[in-house]
Amino acid sequence: MALLRSRVESANRPDCPFPLNNLPYGVFSVSGAAPRCGVAIGDMILDLAECEACGLVDADGTFAQPALNSFMALGRARWDAVRARLTELLAEGATPDLPLVAMSDAQMHLPIRVTEYTDFYASKNHAFNVGVLFRGPENALPPQWTHMPIGYNGRASSVVVSGTPIRRPMGQVRGEAGPEWVPCRRLDLELELGAVVGADSEMGSRVSVEQAEAMIFGYVLLNDWSARDIQAWEYQPLGPFQSKALGTTIGAWIVTQAALEPFRCAGAERLNPLLPYLHERRPGLYDLELGWTMNGQVMGRTNYNVMYYSSAQQLAHHTSSGCPMRVGDLLGSGTISGPGRDQAGALLEMTGGGKAPVTVNGAPRTFIEDGDEIGLFAQAQGAGYRIGFGPCTGRILPAQP
Amino acid sequence: MALLRSRVESANRPDCPFPLNNLPYGVFSVSGAAPRCGVAIGDMILDLAECEACGLVDADGTFAQPALNSFMALGRARWDAVRARLTELLAEGATPDLPLVAMSDAQMHLPIRVTEYTDFYASKNHAFNVGVLFRGPENALPPQWTHMPIGYNGRASSVVVSGTPIRRPMGQVRGEAGPEWVPCRRLDLELELGAVVGADSEMGSRVSVEQAEAMIFGYVLLNDWSARDIQAWEYQPLGPFQSKALGTTIGAWIVTQAALEPFRCAGAERLNPLLPYLHERRPGLYDLELGWTMNGQVMGRTNYNVMYYSSAQQLAHHTSSGCPMRVGDLLGSGTISGPGRDQAGALLEMTGGGKAPVTVNGAPRTFIEDGDEIGLFAQAQGAGYRIGFGPCTGRILPAQP
Repeated sequence: MALLRSRVESANRPDCPFPLNNLPYGVFSVSGAAPRCGVAIGDMILDLAECEACGLVDADGTFAQPALNSFMALGRARWDAVRARLTELLAEGATPDLPLVAMSDAQMHLPIRVTEYTDFYASKNHAFNVGVLFRGPENALPPQWTHMPIGYNGRASSVVVSGTPIRRPMGQVRGEAGPEWVPCRRLDLELELGAVVGADSEMGSRVSVEQAEAMIFGYVLLNDWSARDIQAWEYQPLGPFQSKALGTTIGAWIVTQAALEPFRCAGAERLNPLLPYLHERRPGLYDLELGWTMNGQVMGRTNYNVMYYSSAQQLAHHTSSGCPMRVGDLLGSGTISGPGRDQAGALLEMTGGGKAPVTVNGAPRTFIEDGDEIGLFAQAQGAGYRIGFGPCTGRILPAQP
Repeated sequence: MALLRSRVESANRPDCPFPLNNLPYGVFSVSGAAPRCGVAIGDMILDLAECEACGLVDADGTFAQPALNSFMALGRARWDAVRARLTELLAEGATPDLPLVAMSDAQMHLPIRVTEYTDFYASKNHAFNVGVLFRGPENALPPQWTHMPIGYNGRASSVVVSGTPIRRPMGQVRGEAGPEWVPCRRLDLELELGAVVGADSEMGSRVSVEQAEAMIFGYVLLNDWSARDIQAWEYQPLGPFQSKALGTTIGAWIVTQAALEPFRCAGAERLNPLLPYLHERRPGLYDLELGWTMNGQVMGRTNYNVMYYSSAQQLAHHTSSGCPMRVGDLLGSGTISGPGRDQAGALLEMTGGGKAPVTVNGAPRTFIEDGDEIGLFAQAQGAGYRIGFGPCTGRILPAQP
């Protein structure tokens, strides 16, 4: 697929993250007006609420709402129809007057009301590396890891949009003479992609991997901030809890499945056959470069295609017990790490558990310090265009003892 | 405190679960009308939406909604004012005409929209007994267990109201030659009390145990159905996931903190001092008899006062990282088990991991079979009255392979 040329000139630059091929959805506001749905094009945002008010597009009035949940609930046929219509309206040569807003004038909000949030653990490099640090090399990869996408329920209330400051948590950690109550000393990021679920499933029913794929509306960048010292003390046997509840940052733009379709590819080599309920008829990952920065310096770079399980497999597994899924559910991919040190999606891995500092703008770091800003980035490179995700950043505020 | 006599004669019987002292809230409907809020009194339900429409009580119109979330969000001062007004209206000798509905004519619904659901692990007997079965006696009680209320995020979408059938899940279990995909063979119940959170907390802030207590609106019976074979294979290292997502049943009636106040008591003896953020100024448990039945036969009986952590301590811990809490959050106490076999709140414990069957109406059981019905019950015994919770039942449907 080549670049689709847009009437918005800035969208036609080869390095623009938001060409006409992309059309990611978000929620924005300008100068105090009510938040509403929009789509990114070049350095502009198309005001979808205004478009609907003018009769340019039809989404049953859902674009005037401050979250995309109601639009998603209209179903895939409507997602496709609206995308086709927006492609038409924004194409080079199209003439209708459009309510476009400069991105620089807009404030971005959480694009969805997060219904529930689940985080998975699907990069073999990450699972192995972290397993070694928490449990030693002989127990590093849990025995079921190659048979099922392991995940845990996270806390939806702590999901925030890119740019929201994150407070360093206080917490219980293991001490010499019993547990201590301290500001987290091992604060970390996790580089992830979040899948946004756009359809419900019924309680007591399972969905296949194909059905699951059709339920996914799109993807956001996701940073699952992690307090490693709190995690080490609390996580056995019921899993991470407060160590993962200090905040999860997502990008403001949901990149749709349709935009990523040209980049579909297979993931990591399978180590053993999967049970039939996890079979994929076609590859479920994307050739998508991702990375992260600390205070502006690129620290790690990897690719989404290192993952062992796709979001569709994770979603299918999530319903395997009959668990009902709902519009607005968010599924974290798990930390995305390649095999090399400079491909790690978390400081825990990159520094070998804090033993081997990295250098950031000349200063040593093992974990995140107060005032540090972490940013995630991702892009799929097409022929003469790219699909970007926009920023996913957060700066750390000091703990409140 | 003695029985408060009501104009509803059935509420004055000493064995009535819903005397004027109780006034639990629920959501009901009659003959196809829209679900609305009500309060139980004797064998009747007072239609609170109608009461508001007639000007008998003032809750900003929230009682016409099909969930108590908006009423709870009005805050504790309003909870108290409405309770005082209802006590007046329903007292013996009160004369205003009241919209009362026979409980037998009403269908009950989920009393709240469950925002998020967290399940704890706060009975030492249960934690130890289950720990022995999953990890052996030497690792039975996790080292942090006496220092913090361990919990994990559950799945809110799978919480259903008493009477809803529960489908036996399919799932991955450990097999001789690798994992197998089978109907759950070790289906279990968990006898719990659920605390309903009635106020928000701010992200990045912590709440004290006292503040936490003031945020709790009331309590429901809660059965956290558990697939033990799926759990054993999946739960390390990120905790239980699909084994706990097949369904969680709660009772239809929320018993308020106010109703339970006369039964306040201390819990289990503390084995070591707690960190200051978990200190309680006054005892946070209740002298509340609980138990469960299988196909009508009483199987286990225990008391809520065996618990090691109160719901207020659990809620305070839940915010320790700055995790924001929201109106409608549900906190499971963890399985409530006394030390004896006939005090166990789960079959896993009662049967020693399935090795020692129990007899139910003459038939042996290790775990739950298709068609079995599990019921929970609870009551606090006052002088001449009792505070009941109503039923919390579920019958098991066969798996769908």
